[in-house]
Amino acid sequence: MSEAQDLHYIGTRPVRPDGVEKVTGKANYGADENRPGLIHGVVVRSPHAHARVTGINTGPALEMDGVFAVITAADFPSRDGISVGRKRFFENIIASDKVLYQGQPVAAIAASTLELAKAAAEQLQIDYEPLPAVFDMREALSSQAPVLHDDMITGEATEPSNVAATTAITKGDVAAGFAEADIVVERTFTTAMVHQGYIEPHACTADFNVDGRATIWCSSQGHFGIRDMAALALGWDTGDIRVVPQEIGGGFGGKTIVYLEPLALKLSEKAGRPVKMVMSREDVFRATGPAPGTINRIKIGAKSDGTITAMYADLLYEAGAFPGSPLGAGGMCIFAPYEVENVQVEGEEVVVNKPRVAAYRAPGAPQSMYAGESVLDEIAQKLNMDPIDFRLKNAAKKGTSAAYGPRFKDIGFVECLEAAKAHPNYQARLEANQGRGVAAGFWFNAGNNSSAEVHVAESGMIQIVEGSPDIGGSRASMALMAAETLQVPYERIRVRVGDTDSTGFCNTTGGSRTTFATGMAVINACEDVVYQLRQRAALTWGVDVEQVEWVDGEARPLPGVNIDAEPLKLAKLARAFPKTGGPISARASLNAQGPGPSFSVNFCDVEVDPDTGHTKVLRFTAIQDAGRAIHPDYVEGQMQGGAVQGIGWALNEEYVFDDNGTLENPGFLDYRIPVASDLPMIDTQIIEIANDTHPYGVRGVGETPIVAPLAAVGNAVSRAIGKRLDELPMSPPKVLAAIES
Amino acid sequence: MSEAQDLHYIGTRPVRPDGVEKVTGKANYGADENRPGLIHGVVVRSPHAHARVTGINTGPALEMDGVFAVITAADFPSRDGISVGRKRFFENIIASDKVLYQGQPVAAIAASTLELAKAAAEQLQIDYEPLPAVFDMREALSSQAPVLHDDMITGEATEPSNVAATTAITKGDVAAGFAEADIVVERTFTTAMVHQGYIEPHACTADFNVDGRATIWCSSQGHFGIRDMAALALGWDTGDIRVVPQEIGGGFGGKTIVYLEPLALKLSEKAGRPVKMVMSREDVFRATGPAPGTINRIKIGAKSDGTITAMYADLLYEAGAFPGSPLGAGGMCIFAPYEVENVQVEGEEVVVNKPRVAAYRAPGAPQSMYAGESVLDEIAQKLNMDPIDFRLKNAAKKGTSAAYGPRFKDIGFVECLEAAKAHPNYQARLEANQGRGVAAGFWFNAGNNSSAEVHVAESGMIQIVEGSPDIGGSRASMALMAAETLQVPYERIRVRVGDTDSTGFCNTTGGSRTTFATGMAVINACEDVVYQLRQRAALTWGVDVEQVEWVDGEARPLPGVNIDAEPLKLAKLARAFPKTGGPISARASLNAQGPGPSFSVNFCDVEVDPDTGHTKVLRFTAIQDAGRAIHPDYVEGQMQGGAVQGIGWALNEEYVFDDNGTLENPGFLDYRIPVASDLPMIDTQIIEIANDTHPYGVRGVGETPIVAPLAAVGNAVSRAIGKRLDELPMSPPKVLAAIES
Repeated sequence: MSEAQDLHYIGTRPVRPDGVEKVTGKANYGADENRPGLIHGVVVRSPHAHARVTGINTGPALEMDGVFAVITAADFPSRDGISVGRKRFFENIIASDKVLYQGQPVAAIAASTLELAKAAAEQLQIDYEPLPAVFDMREALSSQAPVLHDDMITGEATEPSNVAATTAITKGDVAAGFAEADIVVERTFTTAMVHQGYIEPHACTADFNVDGRATIWCSSQGHFGIRDMAALALGWDTGDIRVVPQEIGGGFGGKTIVYLEPLALKLSEKAGRPVKMVMSREDVFRATGPAPGTINRIKIGAKSDGTITAMYADLLYEAGAFPGSPLGAGGMCIFAPYEVENVQVEGEEVVVNKPRVAAYRAPGAPQSMYAGESVLDEIAQKLNMDPIDFRLKNAAKKGTSAAYGPRFKDIGFVECLEAAKAHPNYQARLEANQGRGVAAGFWFNAGNNSSAEVHVAESGMIQIVEGSPDIGGSRASMALMAAETLQVPYERIRVRVGDTDSTGFCNTTGGSRTTFATGMAVINACEDVVYQLRQRAALTWGVDVEQVEWVDGEARPLPGVNIDAEPLKLAKLARAFPKTGGPISARASLNAQGPGPSFSVNFCDVEVDPDTGHTKVLRFTAIQDAGRAIHPDYVEGQMQGGAVQGIGWALNEEYVFDDNGTLENPGFLDYRIPVASDLPMIDTQIIEIANDTHPYGVRGVGETPIVAPLAAVGNAVSRAIGKRLDELPMSPPKVLAAIES
Repeated sequence: MSEAQDLHYIGTRPVRPDGVEKVTGKANYGADENRPGLIHGVVVRSPHAHARVTGINTGPALEMDGVFAVITAADFPSRDGISVGRKRFFENIIASDKVLYQGQPVAAIAASTLELAKAAAEQLQIDYEPLPAVFDMREALSSQAPVLHDDMITGEATEPSNVAATTAITKGDVAAGFAEADIVVERTFTTAMVHQGYIEPHACTADFNVDGRATIWCSSQGHFGIRDMAALALGWDTGDIRVVPQEIGGGFGGKTIVYLEPLALKLSEKAGRPVKMVMSREDVFRATGPAPGTINRIKIGAKSDGTITAMYADLLYEAGAFPGSPLGAGGMCIFAPYEVENVQVEGEEVVVNKPRVAAYRAPGAPQSMYAGESVLDEIAQKLNMDPIDFRLKNAAKKGTSAAYGPRFKDIGFVECLEAAKAHPNYQARLEANQGRGVAAGFWFNAGNNSSAEVHVAESGMIQIVEGSPDIGGSRASMALMAAETLQVPYERIRVRVGDTDSTGFCNTTGGSRTTFATGMAVINACEDVVYQLRQRAALTWGVDVEQVEWVDGEARPLPGVNIDAEPLKLAKLARAFPKTGGPISARASLNAQGPGPSFSVNFCDVEVDPDTGHTKVLRFTAIQDAGRAIHPDYVEGQMQGGAVQGIGWALNEEYVFDDNGTLENPGFLDYRIPVASDLPMIDTQIIEIANDTHPYGVRGVGETPIVAPLAAVGNAVSRAIGKRLDELPMSPPKVLAAIES
């Protein structure tokens, strides 16, 4: 792909194909499937943060009129003798002998109405023997701490502990690097457990057939993943479960795993009825996967000219009750934007009696890079260097070997930095109590498996089927890439997200893989369609396919092929299909390689009220390399959305637990995400440095936007008040305390 | 394909995949889709058999509370200046200036409840100017008859008439043939208009989006056809309509066209709501397409040794109000089983003021072959020859040039005749008032366009998607052919009927094309899967794909390929997909050629009560060449079902109209189809003469079974009472009259 490539559709901003259904209320989300005979399921959750389950009496609940089924772990495959990883996956779906956080499922009940199911849940008698709990990572690492899992023996250890995993990245010799440095800054940063804040709670409807086959309707980031995890939890064959994707009202990583689906299926099996389960907002906060809180110690050394000589990080990531934190990704990303000789990252993942964490947009990177980019800002300030110039001096570029492994090909970090420096917002004057923070963001992006099918209707309409849910506008981006490949107007392309029985396998949407990988499957299938159309024109004209080209949506004899033939337009070829070999369809599958890393530079101006400690975001500028922006509105939307989530993470959002491990703010009134009135317009600038492994140069764009804002805001606040803060969220009391200290 | 081919799955009789959903009531039929905001539509139908529509006042109906929309022909594209064929298609959906049969739609109304919609229909003011009507074909052909269509000028005619079409087939010289004959029998036969008698009335739900796209849920014999016809009726692009196939409760040709769907879509567009429309049984009888009544004059000559010298037919087929009768097919089939030098078929299709006819199982053939096979029986009787021997003497075989065109390849007519002769039922003794009738049946079968996709789940489950509704067990037959091709157990195959946006194009199921054509698409796609599996094994072993064979569901090094490799089973290859190239899927499309004609021989023993004229069927034996019986239960089921429908047609079924063209028996109490207590067990024998254009030798089997029973029963009755009958149905009064004449 060259920059000069003449693109007709990619880069335009047409209306989204699913817009009308969504704004008219016709689109079906996770809770919207209804079936004849439907009943309602609720989860019975642990009130204890750590306890042994000594008995469950389902009798009184089951005797209630209208109660159809009660399930416990005993209804699922035995957990004896299975791998610890699988056992922990099972236990987080429904606990057997022990609960490890408040809200962990212990039973589920299905009844004719939701109210009745809730009333029956009250009648369920569960006996617990409370155990001492631990909520703080440092406490959890002490030798006196209660150990959550007596089979958790990690790395070199010989005794069980709360350490779930470790990570280590080494490049060069950091000790030698620090010895060369003129300045070394070391600081420890704390971030809180936060939630993705998607609007739509988890919800599903499950319908079991007596032949052992079942259907689930749910919203998720990947219905094939839901299918596979539900089958694993139930001990069923994946092929016996069909998952029908509903529209998704936000996920951001939080809808990549199963909570309700296996319970709903099992309830449906026992009840002989379709079962709907919908989480309350409180359920979502208490018992789905937030992003981990972290404690990250960073040490960076530089010469007085700004050359970084060594970068070190010691990361501590919460797992929640079961392993699953994105510690590894946090370690990979933290120093990736910089070309530095000596790098070392160490880290530990720690289990505590809180809900198991899950992915949240660029999982792990915002926390680690908040810490790393804060220290870089401090060094720049101490060296009296412009923070962009400081980063430019050390910026990774084509050929840089990242500490975490790869040697970068074409990347856009330098271009992002230069764009930031040149941006008008960067010249805006700052007043008293105002500060400007700069930070970089990085995400390596994912490829993975995708499939797509393309069918040509007789009218020439193009119908695409693929298995990636439309989370961030993928129907539109697939249609644009198909339009470009086929040279057919965008409006003539239809994209459908197929259920798990009806389209080829696609991995879960995450890691910013879909536009890249599923897009490539769509492009490949469309290229096959173009070839077939050339073949059919060749057949019509009695020439060889190699003598036919496809230009502007029509087959033409190649220049120099001397036949008397009018060009054949798509619609004409489509109509003639019975005479030229039958219906025109194509498909492609791949395990996409080379997703192409994504870099961003954000800068933010804030004003801190010295009387209240309240931070107002004045300006926010997000600059990011998108490789190629297929639909620029959506790329900008990703950048804006990530910025807003990052601003919330930086300034306000946190899980607040009491001493018993009870989450005290399980709702959007008390867990405060930014709303429009909290924010300025988020300014965006897309940089396009093509990713050469993708036909149109695409890089994933969804993750990186959330990475830089934490440090950009943090650095702005620190510069505004003249003191370095080291704890998120920078809520007014903390800022005020820092000002007054 | 050879007879000796070693088949593991084809020819077995496993349970049907859709059985559980159907017997537990979970399967969704045409009327079973419900949507939030759904409203109900009814059709306002003409009370006149022939009238001019002079005015429609929709005001009073529209003013009623809860009435959302009223539509008339004015809401559809203009019919000015379009082709007559298209105009007649439109008029049968909704009449504009003139109605041509009682029950023809004139308007449709959607309201919040069905009751309200019916009440609103009463308020609709439609002014008619009645015109003289004609219901009898002979009367319609007279020069005094009212002419239904003033633009119907057929063939050599210069004036409009009620002749809609003509047919002509000529081979040799019948005049010379009759001159050679020792015996000539000429007789004219009448058959009544009959209905297919499917259990499920036509029903659909339509949902229009304000972006111009719409979805229809309906049962049909081909949802791509419904899509295309609905789009045509509305003047929309086919790609803007998605049709989701529901299960079908019988069609037999009657669900190949649109009645309600365009009306429901237009009502939904105007109302802004999903609209459900369900026909009453009376609607089905009055206003959907029955099989035409016919008047067929047959003349056959033979030598005294039984050699047929000439066959002549003059066919008269009712069209109903608009052209569409299967006259052509009736002419093609009538003499096809016989190798005769001199054949002539002439025919006319005549419009009358009755509902437009539609396809009914082997459309056109039962009526013509009833006549032809009756005359053959009479000749055999007069020659004192066994009717099977008589047919054997003249039977078509490989190399016979059929009068309608083709030269037969391998066919099974002789084998069917020989099997009939050898059948124990043929030796059963007949008592007084009993008779045995023999008849042959024929259908040429269809191919046409089909597509299929195959996906391999990680567990090795095979998921097939195709676009042919499952009417006669096609999920099972597709799964069996896939199991055979992949060498994977039947239970590991799942077949889904995809909607029109989600799978490649398939023509409507009809003419017995699906097991043949869609089956070939499935087989081709499965062969591609086998190739991909071999490739992946080859990649795993580091050898060439040509060195890998697929045997018993696993990849093995070809004998002689000297590598140290254990066979790789499907499940193992399926699980390893990310490492070997991504998800495993395949697809195929084709316009299938060479469907292979199907022959049958039926014989039937009846006893006629001389006091009442009632005919009791004592034994019925159906023998048919299926090419290869993929699932023999279903083949036998087709043979039995066709026999029963043919018995009903022969003995009881008929549309009874009064002088005004009002159907007097529009329900199953008065239109009497055979029930179990009317019938003996239908004995079946499948003959398998492989059709060499299909990988497993399939011929269509669904049409032929209904062709022979009419004459088999008729010949039996004639022999039982010793008098030749020439009119269907042979209801007791007619038989009694014949006995007493």
